[in-house]
Amino acid sequence: MTLPATSALPFKVADLSLAEAGRHQIRLAENEMPGLMALREEFGASQPLAGARIAGSLHMTVQTAVLIETLVALGARVRWASCNIFSTQDEAAAAIAVGPTGTPAAPAGAPVFAWKGETLEEYWWCAERIFDWSEEAAREGADWSGPNMILDDGGDATLLVHKGREAELAGEVPAATDAANAEERVILDTLRRSLELAPDRWTRIAAELRGVTEETTTGVHRLYELHADGGLQFPAINVNDSVTKSKFDNKYGIRHSLPDGLNRATDVLIGGKVVFVVGYGDVGKGAAEALRGQGARVIVSEVDPICALQAAMDGFQVARLEDVVGEVDIFVTCTGNYHVITLDHILAMKHLAIVSNVGHFDNEIDMAALEALPGAERIEIKPQVHEWRLPNGRSVLVLSEGRLMNLGNATGHPSFVMSNSFTNQVLAQIELYTRPEAYPVGVYVLPKHLDEKVARLHLDALGVGLTTLTAEQAAYIGVPVEGPYKVDHYRY
Amino acid sequence: MTLPATSALPFKVADLSLAEAGRHQIRLAENEMPGLMALREEFGASQPLAGARIAGSLHMTVQTAVLIETLVALGARVRWASCNIFSTQDEAAAAIAVGPTGTPAAPAGAPVFAWKGETLEEYWWCAERIFDWSEEAAREGADWSGPNMILDDGGDATLLVHKGREAELAGEVPAATDAANAEERVILDTLRRSLELAPDRWTRIAAELRGVTEETTTGVHRLYELHADGGLQFPAINVNDSVTKSKFDNKYGIRHSLPDGLNRATDVLIGGKVVFVVGYGDVGKGAAEALRGQGARVIVSEVDPICALQAAMDGFQVARLEDVVGEVDIFVTCTGNYHVITLDHILAMKHLAIVSNVGHFDNEIDMAALEALPGAERIEIKPQVHEWRLPNGRSVLVLSEGRLMNLGNATGHPSFVMSNSFTNQVLAQIELYTRPEAYPVGVYVLPKHLDEKVARLHLDALGVGLTTLTAEQAAYIGVPVEGPYKVDHYRY
Amino acid sequence: MTLPATSALPFKVADLSLAEAGRHQIRLAENEMPGLMALREEFGASQPLAGARIAGSLHMTVQTAVLIETLVALGARVRWASCNIFSTQDEAAAAIAVGPTGTPAAPAGAPVFAWKGETLEEYWWCAERIFDWSEEAAREGADWSGPNMILDDGGDATLLVHKGREAELAGEVPAATDAANAEERVILDTLRRSLELAPDRWTRIAAELRGVTEETTTGVHRLYELHADGGLQFPAINVNDSVTKSKFDNKYGIRHSLPDGLNRATDVLIGGKVVFVVGYGDVGKGAAEALRGQGARVIVSEVDPICALQAAMDGFQVARLEDVVGEVDIFVTCTGNYHVITLDHILAMKHLAIVSNVGHFDNEIDMAALEALPGAERIEIKPQVHEWRLPNGRSVLVLSEGRLMNLGNATGHPSFVMSNSFTNQVLAQIELYTRPEAYPVGVYVLPKHLDEKVARLHLDALGVGLTTLTAEQAAYIGVPVEGPYKVDHYRY
Amino acid sequence: MTLPATSALPFKVADLSLAEAGRHQIRLAENEMPGLMALREEFGASQPLAGARIAGSLHMTVQTAVLIETLVALGARVRWASCNIFSTQDEAAAAIAVGPTGTPAAPAGAPVFAWKGETLEEYWWCAERIFDWSEEAAREGADWSGPNMILDDGGDATLLVHKGREAELAGEVPAATDAANAEERVILDTLRRSLELAPDRWTRIAAELRGVTEETTTGVHRLYELHADGGLQFPAINVNDSVTKSKFDNKYGIRHSLPDGLNRATDVLIGGKVVFVVGYGDVGKGAAEALRGQGARVIVSEVDPICALQAAMDGFQVARLEDVVGEVDIFVTCTGNYHVITLDHILAMKHLAIVSNVGHFDNEIDMAALEALPGAERIEIKPQVHEWRLPNGRSVLVLSEGRLMNLGNATGHPSFVMSNSFTNQVLAQIELYTRPEAYPVGVYVLPKHLDEKVARLHLDALGVGLTTLTAEQAAYIGVPVEGPYKVDHYRY
Repeated sequence: MTLPATSALPFKVADLSLAEAGRHQIRLAENEMPGLMALREEFGASQPLAGARIAGSLHMTVQTAVLIETLVALGARVRWASCNIFSTQDEAAAAIAVGPTGTPAAPAGAPVFAWKGETLEEYWWCAERIFDWSEEAAREGADWSGPNMILDDGGDATLLVHKGREAELAGEVPAATDAANAEERVILDTLRRSLELAPDRWTRIAAELRGVTEETTTGVHRLYELHADGGLQFPAINVNDSVTKSKFDNKYGIRHSLPDGLNRATDVLIGGKVVFVVGYGDVGKGAAEALRGQGARVIVSEVDPICALQAAMDGFQVARLEDVVGEVDIFVTCTGNYHVITLDHILAMKHLAIVSNVGHFDNEIDMAALEALPGAERIEIKPQVHEWRLPNGRSVLVLSEGRLMNLGNATGHPSFVMSNSFTNQVLAQIELYTRPEAYPVGVYVLPKHLDEKVARLHLDALGVGLTTLTAEQAAYIGVPVEGPYKVDHYRY
Repeated sequence: MTLPATSALPFKVADLSLAEAGRHQIRLAENEMPGLMALREEFGASQPLAGARIAGSLHMTVQTAVLIETLVALGARVRWASCNIFSTQDEAAAAIAVGPTGTPAAPAGAPVFAWKGETLEEYWWCAERIFDWSEEAAREGADWSGPNMILDDGGDATLLVHKGREAELAGEVPAATDAANAEERVILDTLRRSLELAPDRWTRIAAELRGVTEETTTGVHRLYELHADGGLQFPAINVNDSVTKSKFDNKYGIRHSLPDGLNRATDVLIGGKVVFVVGYGDVGKGAAEALRGQGARVIVSEVDPICALQAAMDGFQVARLEDVVGEVDIFVTCTGNYHVITLDHILAMKHLAIVSNVGHFDNEIDMAALEALPGAERIEIKPQVHEWRLPNGRSVLVLSEGRLMNLGNATGHPSFVMSNSFTNQVLAQIELYTRPEAYPVGVYVLPKHLDEKVARLHLDALGVGLTTLTAEQAAYIGVPVEGPYKVDHYRY
Repeated sequence: MTLPATSALPFKVADLSLAEAGRHQIRLAENEMPGLMALREEFGASQPLAGARIAGSLHMTVQTAVLIETLVALGARVRWASCNIFSTQDEAAAAIAVGPTGTPAAPAGAPVFAWKGETLEEYWWCAERIFDWSEEAAREGADWSGPNMILDDGGDATLLVHKGREAELAGEVPAATDAANAEERVILDTLRRSLELAPDRWTRIAAELRGVTEETTTGVHRLYELHADGGLQFPAINVNDSVTKSKFDNKYGIRHSLPDGLNRATDVLIGGKVVFVVGYGDVGKGAAEALRGQGARVIVSEVDPICALQAAMDGFQVARLEDVVGEVDIFVTCTGNYHVITLDHILAMKHLAIVSNVGHFDNEIDMAALEALPGAERIEIKPQVHEWRLPNGRSVLVLSEGRLMNLGNATGHPSFVMSNSFTNQVLAQIELYTRPEAYPVGVYVLPKHLDEKVARLHLDALGVGLTTLTAEQAAYIGVPVEGPYKVDHYRY
Repeated sequence: MTLPATSALPFKVADLSLAEAGRHQIRLAENEMPGLMALREEFGASQPLAGARIAGSLHMTVQTAVLIETLVALGARVRWASCNIFSTQDEAAAAIAVGPTGTPAAPAGAPVFAWKGETLEEYWWCAERIFDWSEEAAREGADWSGPNMILDDGGDATLLVHKGREAELAGEVPAATDAANAEERVILDTLRRSLELAPDRWTRIAAELRGVTEETTTGVHRLYELHADGGLQFPAINVNDSVTKSKFDNKYGIRHSLPDGLNRATDVLIGGKVVFVVGYGDVGKGAAEALRGQGARVIVSEVDPICALQAAMDGFQVARLEDVVGEVDIFVTCTGNYHVITLDHILAMKHLAIVSNVGHFDNEIDMAALEALPGAERIEIKPQVHEWRLPNGRSVLVLSEGRLMNLGNATGHPSFVMSNSFTNQVLAQIELYTRPEAYPVGVYVLPKHLDEKVARLHLDALGVGLTTLTAEQAAYIGVPVEGPYKVDHYRY
C-alpha cells in the first residue's frame, strides 16, 4: 500500500474543472438546504464554534460540503474523511479542499481525506488523518495536536479513539484473532503504527474531546452499548433520533430515492407492477407511499403486529413473502434485519423479477447464498445492475449487488432531506461545544426545542405559514408560546 | 329532581323491541371487534377476572356493550354508567341490562345506569350508583360493598372516589365557591348526600380498589397531576397512550367519521371544495387524508413546526387561517386547543361556509362569542345543523353547535377502532387485577408486548399474514422472536 | 284506487312546516348549484323560455326544486311529476307547490304531482297529470291544452305520449298480454281511460311538442331505439352523454355517495377492509377511488380489457370474483349488467360480508335467487339494511334490498353534481325551444361549446382561476379563443 | 456534408460490445413488452406480413428494436430510420443491424439508418434510404424497388412520398421561399437530387403503398389535413387515437418519466415543493398524479373549463400562472400549445425555480425570448441542465433547453407503455396489409376490438384475471361475449 505522503490534498484537485463543477453543485445545494443557510445567518456573527476543531467522518458529498462550510462559517476548523469507501463525490471533495476563494494551486479550503473507491487501508488511513492536527497546531503555536469535537456517521471515528486509547492503556495492540475479518485487521494495523509513533496519542485526544455528535442508527447503537459497558470517554449526542432526522430521512428520503433508483437502474414502468415491500417502518412507509404514487400494487410484510396493522389500515395487502413470491415483479427490503429475502425466495421468483434493498446491509438479501449457488451466472447489464441467471432457467435482476440501491443506483437522500439531518448536527455541535457543563459523559438526544427549531428553519423554503399560539392558547394547553409543544413520547 | 328509586333498570327496557334491536347491533358489532372476541376465546376458561367488581364509566354504546360482555365473559361483575350525558345508545343499554338470556321482565344482564339525555343531577346520580354494590354483597353475603376496579373514561369515576375520600377526611363537604360552575355544585351535592349516609364510604372504596384503567387524554392528564401532587390512591394504567389506542382512534377513527359527519349533516359534495384543517396531529392527519381521498383541496394550519413540516412534506398547503379564510368552504378544527376559530375568522368566511370541530371541547370554535354577537340569528336546519345568519349578510353553517361533530352528526368511532381501544382496556384490567404486586401506586402505560398483542388480535380479521422472525433474525436485531420489537421511544 | 280529485296539491302542503323546511333546504342547495343560479342571472332578463310549457318527469328532490325554479325564472311554466315512486322528498314538493311567495292556503308555485311512496297507479296518474294543461289554458283563454316541451328522466313521459298516440291511431288500447308485468297493465289502463275521454289527445300533444331533453342512460337508449325504428315523433337531446353529466355524475357522484351509503347503513370501518368493486367504468372508478381514500384495499373485476388495464395501471388488483370471494369484506357492483353477483358467490362469502349495488337495477345482484333460497332467512336490522342468514350458517348484509344503495342508504348525488346535470338540462331546453329549426326529429347530444359552458359556470364556486388563450395560442392549436377546445372524440 | 457511401451500416457496429449491450437490453425489454411477444406467438406461424416491405421511421430505440423484430417475425422485411435526430440509442441500432444471429462482420439484421446526433442533412438522407429497396429487389430479382407499407411517427416518411410525387408531377422541385426554414431547404435539396436520378420514383412508390400507420398527434393531424385537401394517396391508420395508445402513452408514460426526468436532472426533493402543471389533459393528469404521489403540492392551469373542473374535482388548486408564479418551485408544461410560459413569467419566478416541458415543442416555453434577453447568462450545470442567470439577479434552471425533458433528462416512455403503442402499430400494419379492400383511401382509427385486443395482450404480465361475460349477460347489455364492449364515443 502506498498512501499519500502529505495530508492536504490526497486527490487531484489540480483538475480545476472538478472543483468548479463541485462549486456549482454546492451553490445549487445551498438553495435546497435552508436550515444550514439559516444557521449561517443566525450564528455567523457570534461564531459559537470559534475554537472548535472538528474531526468529521461522514460521506463526502455535495450536501456534506454545505455542512462543512456551515461549520466553518460558525467559527470551526475541520478535517474531514468519508465514512464509506464508495460514497465520496470527488467534485465535492475537490471544491471543499480548494475552498470558495482558493485555487487548486493555492487551496484555501478544509483538509479533506476522501475519494471515491478507497481501499480499506486507504479508508482507515484517511480516518486517522482527521485526528492529526499537527499542521494546524504548528501554524498557531498551539499545544494541542488533535481535535476537540467529533462529527461521526456510523461511529468509526469514535471507535478509533476508543480502540486507540485501549491499546495505549494495554501498551500493545492485540493480534488479530483468526475470526477477525479484513477490516478488523486493517484497524489493528493502523493502531499498531500509531502506537509505535506515540504511546499516548489517543489517550490525550480522548481527554480533549468535548464530545461527539452521531448521525446514524448503527453509530448510536454502538454508543449506547459503549456507555452501558462503562467505556464511553466523552458525551455524545444522538442526532439520529431527532424527529426531523429519523422521520424525514427515512420516510421522505426513501419516498424520493426508491423510485429514482428503480428508474435509473431498470427503466421499468412501475405503474401496474406488483411490488413487495419487506418491512413497514419509516423506510417501508416511504417506499410503499412512493410506489403507490406511481400506480404500483404494493404488498407489505411485517413481523411487528402494530406496523402490520398500520399497513393494513393504510390500504395495503399484508402477506408473508413466501405466500405471494411468484406474483411479484419488484422486491424492496426495508428492514435493517438480515436474510429477509432468502435463496429459496429468489428461486421462486418470476423471470426477471427485480430485487433491491433500501434497508441496511447487503445481507438483508442473502447475496452470499446466491453467489454460492452452483450454476448461477452473473451478467452485468450495466454498473450496479446484474442479471443473475438461475439454474431453474429464470433470471432475477439484482440492484447494487444487494447494497443500498438508493445510494448505488440513485444519488441518496436529496439535499433538502439532508438539510434537516445536518441542521441537527450543527445544533448538536454547538450544544456540546458551548455547554459542556450541561452534558456529563452519556448519550443524549437533542432537546425537543432544537428539534422543533430544525423544522422551523425549513418552513419558509416551502412557503409554509406557521401559526403562532396566543398566550391564552399556550396556557390552555400548558406549553410555552415558543415551544416545545409536545411531550417527549409524542409519536408524530 | 326525582331520581329512579331502584338501581336496576333506570329506563324502560320493558320495551322489548329496544333490547332486541340492541342485541342485533351487538351481534353485528362483535364481528367488527375481533380483539375482544379473541380475549373471550383466550381467557374464557381461565377466568382471570373472577372476583373482579368493576365500576365502569364509559359511553354506554353498542361497542361498550361488547366490552362489558367481554369483561363478564372473563369472570368480572360490572356496574355501568355512561361518561357523557348525551352519548348513551338506549338500545345498547337495554340489551346489556336485559342480557343475552334475560327478558325485560326478568333481566339477567348487568346493572346499567345510563340513558340518552341525562341531566347533570341524573348523571352524577348514575356515577354514584356504580359504586354501590350492596345488592350484590347482600346476595352473596359478602363483607364488601363497593367495587375493586374502575374502568374510567375522562376520570369522573376516579374523581368521585378521590373527592369523596377527601370530604370524609375533612369531615365535611366544602361549600361551593362563587366561581363554581353548575357541575361542580352537583358533585358537591352528591358528596354531601353520601357523607350524610356513610362517613367513610369513599375511604373504604379507595382502599379496596386495585386500580383504574383510564381511556382518554383528559382522564390521563388528571391522573398524572393527581400523582404528581401525591394524591393518587391506587395504581392507574394509561390506556390512552397505547399505540393501538392513540394512533388508531385518532387517525383512523377520524378518517372514517369526519366525512361521515359532513355528509350526514350537509350532503354537500366534498370533492373540489377547499377545506381548512386546523392542526396536523393524529386527528388532523386522519382528517386531511380523508378529505383528500374525497377530492377536496386541503389547507392545514399548525403551530408546531415539526407537524407543519410533515404537512408540507405530505403535499398540503400550510397557511395561517386568517390568510386564506375567505377561500375556504369547510373548516375542521383538530387541535384540543381553544378559540382556534375566532369570531373574526367567522365574520370573514364565505357565505354558507361549514364550521365544525373534531378536536375536543366546543370552545375550540369560539361559539360563546358567536352566540353573543348582536344581530346574529340562529336557524335550525335540522338537529345538530344550524345556520347562523351574521350581521354582515352572510351565513355560516355550524355543526353540532361546535361540539365534536363526529359524535353529534355521525356515530363516533366505528367498532373496529373501538375494538383496539377496548382490548387495551381489558388487558389493562387483567394486569392490574391479577398482578397488583407489579403496580405500586402510580400511572403506567401498558407494556409494549401487550400493545403489540392488541394489534395482533386484529390482524386475522383483516386477512393479514404476519411474518415470524427466525431465531437468527431476532438475535441479529436483538429482540425476542415473539416481541416486543421496538424501543419505547419508537414513533411508528 | 282513489286518486286525488284536483291536480293542484296532491299532498298535504297545508303542513306549513313541511314547505318551510323544504324552502330552507332549497336555499342551501342554491348555494351548491352555481350553474343553475348563473343561468338565472344570464337569462333572467331575456326570458328565453317564455311561452314554454314543460312537462317534467324527474325525481322530485330538493335539487330538482332548484331546477324547476330556474326554468320558471327563465320564463317557462311547468307541471311536474317524479320519475320514481320512492324518490320524492315531500318537503321539496311542498315547497315547490307553495312557491317562494305563496302559502299552503294560497299556493303560488308550480303544480306538482309527486309524493314519497306512490303506488304504480298513482305514479302513472301523476305522469298523466303533467300533460293536462287545461287549467292553464282556461285561465289564459288559450287553444292548446298540453305541453310543448318534455324534460324527462328515464323516458316515461316520452313513452306515454308515444304509446298514447299509437293507441289513438289504432283506435284502441291493446289488451295486456299474459306476460305483461304489473306496470305494463297500469300503463294500458291509463291509456284506456284517456282514449275514452279524448280520441286524439296524445296525437295533438305529440304534434305540439318541440322536443324532449332526456337525463339518463336508460331513457337515451329508448330514444335511440325509437328513432332507429322510425317512431320518434319529436327531436330529443341526450343530456346524459354530455361530459359534464356522465363523467361527473358517475365518477364524482359515486365517489361521494358510496362511502356515505356504507357508513349510514352499517357504520363499519372501511379502512383496512378488502372491498371488491365489480366494474371499472366511470362508476367503478369513482367507487375505487373513494374506498382507497378511506384506507380500504380494493380489488376490481372487469370484462373489458381496456378498463381492466386501466385498473391495473391505477394500482388495483384485478381478479375474478370467484377467485377471491372468500377474502372480501364489502362488495360493490358498478356494472349496469345483471347477475354479476350470483347466489353461488353469496354462498361463498365471509360471515357478515356486505353486499351492495351502485350500478343500476336490483338484478345486478341476483336477489331473486337469494329470496328463493330454501332456508335463507331475512332479518331487518334497520330499514334498507337486511341480514340474510344462509343455510351454510353464515350471514350476509344486503343494502337497499339490492337496489341502488347510494339512493337507498344515502341521499344520492349531492347538489353540486346535480347542478352540472341540470345546467345541461336547462341549456338543452333552451336549445330545443328557441332553435327548433336546428333540430329536425332525431337524437342529439348537446354541442361541445354548451358542455364547456356548463363546466365554466361551476368554476367560480370552486375558486378556479381559468386561463384564457391568447389569439396567437388559439390560432396555433386551431381553436377559437372562447372554445370549443376539443375534437368530439376527445376522451377527457 | 459527406453522407455514408453504402446503405447497410451507417455507424460502427464493428464495435461488438455496442451490439451486445443492445442485445442484452432488447432481451430485458422483451420481458416488458408482452403485447409484441404475444403477437409473435399468435402470428409467427401464419406470417401475415409475408411480402410486406415496411419503410419505418420511428425513434430507433431499444423498444423499437423489439417492434422491428416483431414485424420481421411476422414475415415482414423492414428498412428503418429514426424520426428524430437525437433519439437513436446507438446500441439498439447496432443490435438490430447485426441481428440476433449475425456478427458485426456479417450482419444479419435489418438495414438501419439512424445514429444519435444526426445533422438535418443526414436525417433526410436516412429518411430517403428507407425508400430505396433496390438492394433487396436485386437480390430477389423483383420488379419493385420501394416499400409497400410505411410505419411512420410524425409523418416525415409520408411527407417525403407526397412531396416527391408532387415534384415529379410538376417536373421540378420549387425553389425554397425566403421564409423557408433550414429543414425545408434540406427537404427540397433531397427531392431535387432524387428528381435528377429518377423522374417518377415517388409516384411509383405512392402507387405501390398499401398504406401508412401513424404513431403521433402531429402526424395524424397532417394526415387529416392532407385527406381533407384531397391529397392523400393511400389509406392511413391513426394509431395515435387508440385508447391503448393515447390514454396510456400520455397519462401513464408521463406519470413515470416526469419525476424520473426531474430526479436525474436536479436531484431536488419533490416532496413539499410547489409544482405548477400547465394543462390538465392526459399528459397533465399523469404529471399531476405523479407529483402528488411524491408529496408535492400541485397547482394546475387550464384553458378548457371541463378539464379545469376535472382538476378541481381531483383536488388540485387551479390558478392562472401569473397569479401564483412567485410561489412555485417547479414548472411543467403539458399543453402542446406555445408560449404558455413567457419571458414575463420567467422573470417573476423564484430563484432557482425549475422550468421544464413535457408537452410538445420547445416553444411551449418561450426559450427564444429568454435566449434573446440582454444580460441573461447561460451556465451548463451538466448536459441538458442549464442555469440561466437573469438580469434581475435571480436564476432559473431550464431542463433539456425547453425540449421534452422526459426524453432529454430521462429515457422517455418505458417499454411497457411502448408495448401498448407498438402492438397497435403491428395490428394496424396487419389490417392495412392483409385487408386492403377494407380500407379505401382515408384516415381510420383501429377498430375497437383490436384496441381491446391490445389491452388484452398486456393483462397476463400484470397478473390481471379478466372476467368473461356469460352469454346472458352479453345479451342483456347488447354486446358480443368477446367484445367490443363499448360504443365508439365511450370516454374511458
